[in-house]
Amino acid sequence: MAKRVFSGMRPTGKLHLGHLAGALTNWVRLQNEYECLYCIVDWHALMSDYADSSRIRKNCKEVLLDWLAAGLDPEKSTIFVQSHVPQHAELHLALSMITPLGWLQRNPTYKEQILNIQNKDLGTYAFLGYPVLMASDILLYKAEMVPVGEDQSAHLEISRELARRFNNFYGEILPEPQMLLTPTPKVPGTDGRKMSKSYGNSIDIADSPEEMWNKIRTMITDPARERRTDPGDPEKCPVWDLHKVFNDDKEQHKEIIKGCTTAGIGCVQCKKMLMEHVKRVMEPIHERRRYYESHSENLRNIILAGAERAQILAQQTIDEIVNSIGFVPRG
Amino acid sequence: MAKRVFSGMRPTGKLHLGHLAGALTNWVRLQNEYECLYCIVDWHALMSDYADSSRIRKNCKEVLLDWLAAGLDPEKSTIFVQSHVPQHAELHLALSMITPLGWLQRNPTYKEQILNIQNKDLGTYAFLGYPVLMASDILLYKAEMVPVGEDQSAHLEISRELARRFNNFYGEILPEPQMLLTPTPKVPGTDGRKMSKSYGNSIDIADSPEEMWNKIRTMITDPARERRTDPGDPEKCPVWDLHKVFNDDKEQHKEIIKGCTTAGIGCVQCKKMLMEHVKRVMEPIHERRRYYESHSENLRNIILAGAERAQILAQQTIDEIVNSIGFVPRG
Repeated sequence: MAKRVFSGMRPTGKLHLGHLAGALTNWVRLQNEYECLYCIVDWHALMSDYADSSRIRKNCKEVLLDWLAAGLDPEKSTIFVQSHVPQHAELHLALSMITPLGWLQRNPTYKEQILNIQNKDLGTYAFLGYPVLMASDILLYKAEMVPVGEDQSAHLEISRELARRFNNFYGEILPEPQMLLTPTPKVPGTDGRKMSKSYGNSIDIADSPEEMWNKIRTMITDPARERRTDPGDPEKCPVWDLHKVFNDDKEQHKEIIKGCTTAGIGCVQCKKMLMEHVKRVMEPIHERRRYYESHSENLRNIILAGAERAQILAQQTIDEIVNSIGFVPRG
Repeated sequence: MAKRVFSGMRPTGKLHLGHLAGALTNWVRLQNEYECLYCIVDWHALMSDYADSSRIRKNCKEVLLDWLAAGLDPEKSTIFVQSHVPQHAELHLALSMITPLGWLQRNPTYKEQILNIQNKDLGTYAFLGYPVLMASDILLYKAEMVPVGEDQSAHLEISRELARRFNNFYGEILPEPQMLLTPTPKVPGTDGRKMSKSYGNSIDIADSPEEMWNKIRTMITDPARERRTDPGDPEKCPVWDLHKVFNDDKEQHKEIIKGCTTAGIGCVQCKKMLMEHVKRVMEPIHERRRYYESHSENLRNIILAGAERAQILAQQTIDEIVNSIGFVPRG
């Protein structure tokens, strides 16, 4: 039987090319090999946006559109919204019973975020318990593999420790999930920093080719190449990073390196070449996005069918868990 | 429409005469006047007994037997087990999002219990969140009144504050529950201290009349009354406290006071009088307990029917809550 993969994303708005080249391309690949569950984790979004939750519904829709556009296939993967599967909350409650407070308080990601995120009050009970909810998401489906970014590795380690601790108390129920670390390419935004919604430097999956070209056209390049006649250094140029992600023409790579370092080609020319490749990659993605945008009943069916499938797996785990704890049987 | 009352008890084993004279007699009275929900809070029991949960199932049964014996009527009240209603976990997760960590850390009951309970490791995430789960229990049913002991009043205050905070963010959904403080009589155990399972001084509801008499017979009395001929002081005698609870014969009260203070009657005689009253009070209670002990299929039906009724109310609240937060609709 194919191994089971779980991953999730917080619905914080439209996804960008960083998500596409990082997680999503990888997720699309995984669905051909594994039994994949992909979850829009709306409870996790509420954790930081509880004071204004008005955009959560719209953001869930955008994420779903971007996922389907990128090629996640509801026939192959179980695609669903976390709050549609109440069992997440039950496992969260069960795991919270055995979670030492110190594990959460000492979690480096927690300490860092509390310090860094100043515009929201994250001093809540739920935010301290973020890794408990994340562990519930994964363990509820007995997922064996979890594709996560480096920044989530400390959290996944807590999931593994919680599985061990649960099994230690109540018997071997929850497999320890393995981290599936895939090399994620560097995807800079228009200002050269890491592409991120919060930096305002992102090129969104939903952007039209015109919008994309406007962003690429004005994108920063090697700052030392002030004039057309100055030679440039691709290694210092974020446009070159995007070439490495979207341009699969190795001959053209050589041309660009030569042209840039000898001032043989200008930055606009280089960006036009990039744009051709981005267009080619994005064409089927935009087509799928347009299709689903105009078939929203379809979206609804996908998400409800996904929840139904997820609930069946989830309920099996909950049944095992309440039995192993020794609660009065329910049925 | 009758106001709604919610209360719960942790299943920690057989209940004693302190529970009977305190909470249970009151609960039985309330069910004639209000719409009552009485919940065996097994998740709360797991909070302290997670390291050995082997007695939870049996303890739930004992509590249920004692409740029915005391006169809780499944035709009048909704009697159920917390873990049978998954919506408790969902509301717990929702409320955890808006619970300031400081409210929990500053909770005086929390600090006291962490200091006092040395034989169990209570340094868990769930134990810190005890008031969040308690608030969920109450608010899930929009209970307007909660009969609680003094020791729970700080926790109920957090429930009220959480209801206000939730309504402030998401609209008027959760009514603020009122505390129903009923005077609870003093019920000392056999050693004169407050009756408590943990002191080993309790007279259990399930004790046979013979067991009860053995405990009452050897019960401590006014320590100054060393010999039969010494006069005693009822106000210093725990047996007298039990007379005040179980003996409704006001003429006999006078006799006892006179007999004790003048050494006219001995302690054994006084205890025999008490035992007659305890017997009379316990007779219908023991009869009901025996009935249900020998009809355990009945017990099961009561608890499952209770869960079904509770779930209907609970799901209404959850639907309102996820809508008001703004999650993607489920159905």
